[in-house]
Amino acid sequence: MADLSRREMMAGVGGLALAGLPNLNLFQEPAKPVGWAILGLGGYATRNILPNFKDCKLSKPVAVISGSPDKAKGIANEYGIPESKIYNYQNLEKIKDDPDIEVVYVITPPGTHHEFTMRSLAAGKHVCCEKPMTGDLKEAEEMVAMAKKVNRRLGIGYRCHFEPHNLEAMRLCRSGALGTLRTVRSDHGFTMGWDNGWHSKRKLGGYGAISEIGIYAIQALCYLAGADPVEVYGTRDKLKVDRFKEVEDVNHFNLIFPNGVQGFGATAYSWNANNFRVYGDRGNITAEPATGYTGHVFTLNNKKIEVAPANQWALQMDHLSECIRDPKMTLRTPGEMGLRDIRIIDAVLRSAESKSSIRLV
Amino acid sequence: MADLSRREMMAGVGGLALAGLPNLNLFQEPAKPVGWAILGLGGYATRNILPNFKDCKLSKPVAVISGSPDKAKGIANEYGIPESKIYNYQNLEKIKDDPDIEVVYVITPPGTHHEFTMRSLAAGKHVCCEKPMTGDLKEAEEMVAMAKKVNRRLGIGYRCHFEPHNLEAMRLCRSGALGTLRTVRSDHGFTMGWDNGWHSKRKLGGYGAISEIGIYAIQALCYLAGADPVEVYGTRDKLKVDRFKEVEDVNHFNLIFPNGVQGFGATAYSWNANNFRVYGDRGNITAEPATGYTGHVFTLNNKKIEVAPANQWALQMDHLSECIRDPKMTLRTPGEMGLRDIRIIDAVLRSAESKSSIRLV
Repeated sequence: MADLSRREMMAGVGGLALAGLPNLNLFQEPAKPVGWAILGLGGYATRNILPNFKDCKLSKPVAVISGSPDKAKGIANEYGIPESKIYNYQNLEKIKDDPDIEVVYVITPPGTHHEFTMRSLAAGKHVCCEKPMTGDLKEAEEMVAMAKKVNRRLGIGYRCHFEPHNLEAMRLCRSGALGTLRTVRSDHGFTMGWDNGWHSKRKLGGYGAISEIGIYAIQALCYLAGADPVEVYGTRDKLKVDRFKEVEDVNHFNLIFPNGVQGFGATAYSWNANNFRVYGDRGNITAEPATGYTGHVFTLNNKKIEVAPANQWALQMDHLSECIRDPKMTLRTPGEMGLRDIRIIDAVLRSAESKSSIRLV
Repeated sequence: MADLSRREMMAGVGGLALAGLPNLNLFQEPAKPVGWAILGLGGYATRNILPNFKDCKLSKPVAVISGSPDKAKGIANEYGIPESKIYNYQNLEKIKDDPDIEVVYVITPPGTHHEFTMRSLAAGKHVCCEKPMTGDLKEAEEMVAMAKKVNRRLGIGYRCHFEPHNLEAMRLCRSGALGTLRTVRSDHGFTMGWDNGWHSKRKLGGYGAISEIGIYAIQALCYLAGADPVEVYGTRDKLKVDRFKEVEDVNHFNLIFPNGVQGFGATAYSWNANNFRVYGDRGNITAEPATGYTGHVFTLNNKKIEVAPANQWALQMDHLSECIRDPKMTLRTPGEMGLRDIRIIDAVLRSAESKSSIRLV
């Protein structure tokens, strides 16, 4: 987990150059940035993705794909993208003939991820699919199979795998600093009022709170435990209010890992929480806020963990770009990880019905 | 829950007297203190129970029952108890003829609670039994049945029901301040090294971490939810180390309450934690430390909760004394509550075997 990427290693070597050692990087051709097309121009795309390309070393926005022509024009203009590189959901297949586009970042409502991912892969492009991967297990399986079939990268937008506090927590969990890990737990929820958008619509929003915000808890339990769960138990709230009649509100879940670590988590559209804890037999980690955009507060045995700041979005995008450039590199957050998480969500909900735990392997 | 006791109400009336209103209390006979016999003179009895009688209004230590004659003599001397009031585990039945003893506080290892409670009840005395009530469901049932049969009070030493921060949390949960409660959770554990005493022995220590420290989490989930769970799911660790071969180490549990509140908790002898959280749809409570002897830190919507200090042990003992004086009073922490908690523990462990949730009603 958290393997040093080639670029990170090169950055390390570059650092040595400052210390008077030869900079090996000088003998290499500077890599050509990977061209990204941004599909969907909602808040996350315009506020969190597009502005952060400025810190990328190997990734560049070269096209937009949008259902809103005016918005697309404005955004393209803002980022120096020519009008010829504006696509829409009808002519998306034309990107096949645009060699500048190497990867499509799908940032639309979850219920549309499958369609846009499949079409982008079919057009021969690599895909970064925002989380949650989809709201349907069969769709997730198809997406992974399609990427394999066309031999393209499929990454999921799990930015916490590139966020320095979370990376340090993963490192500490693996380092022995906590002794043997025993319990990991996480609460992730936010209070959602009446929603006129996609969140509370099954077809667009996916499973509901568990896939939109609970997935951070599921992700954290897995990357802290350092494994995939083999057994899942879940509960479901009985207090559903009208606005959540199509989607999940409160779910609790237990994940059992093959290394003996026990995880438990909770999620909701009815309360606010963003935290995790790791209990080892020789130490613990607390994180709150744990997985936000900024403001992370992490402790190791009650002492604040300090990490060097870094742009999690830029690192996420550059990592996929590097994997596109170097087929031998292992993608940290592949489609298979997204599929694993959808399998967990599916098992939580089936378990809540059957009142029994579900074996995943 | 947390009903005002008669004494607390009288104290309120006394307060009015200071403001110039008549003190109705003056027209009543001062109640004769209830005589307590302390059975077992370990650390909790000598450090937490005996010294706190000083703050009691209606409770007085009048006898000790101990297996250590020298220790008993020293303690009796310290608290002004005559040597004639020192009993041992062989002649315990003699307390039947000692009218000064009205209630026996059983503070021995959990595996002996059943025997001493049954013998004390048979001797016609009321009993306060320290938590955990016992390490065996059948024993717990017998203890409750016996108290009923001999028409004596049986209380469990659940001091948190008398601790001001926890009382305020219960009040807030009932008050609507948090909106509708949805999720309650609690982690309670401590790291236990090699133990040469009773903790890791099934016969003396009971179930293990879940009954010794996890019971605080179970208790908290119930008194915060304001209900008894109807469904229980549990997991059990697979990493058992040698020193816990007879007892439970890590357990996780989900409790489903009939009012729709979902609870989850964890406990261990392999990590330290003392906390709970309440998530309502309009607010939350955090507590950490939550259930210690001192140092409670509670927040309501991130603002610290301030409460007037009070002696939780003195209040706990006086409450049982009041219930002994007034047969119409409802005991806050009756044997039935202890039995409920043992039923929950039993269900957690059965569920961990069956991999299915267990219905409790």
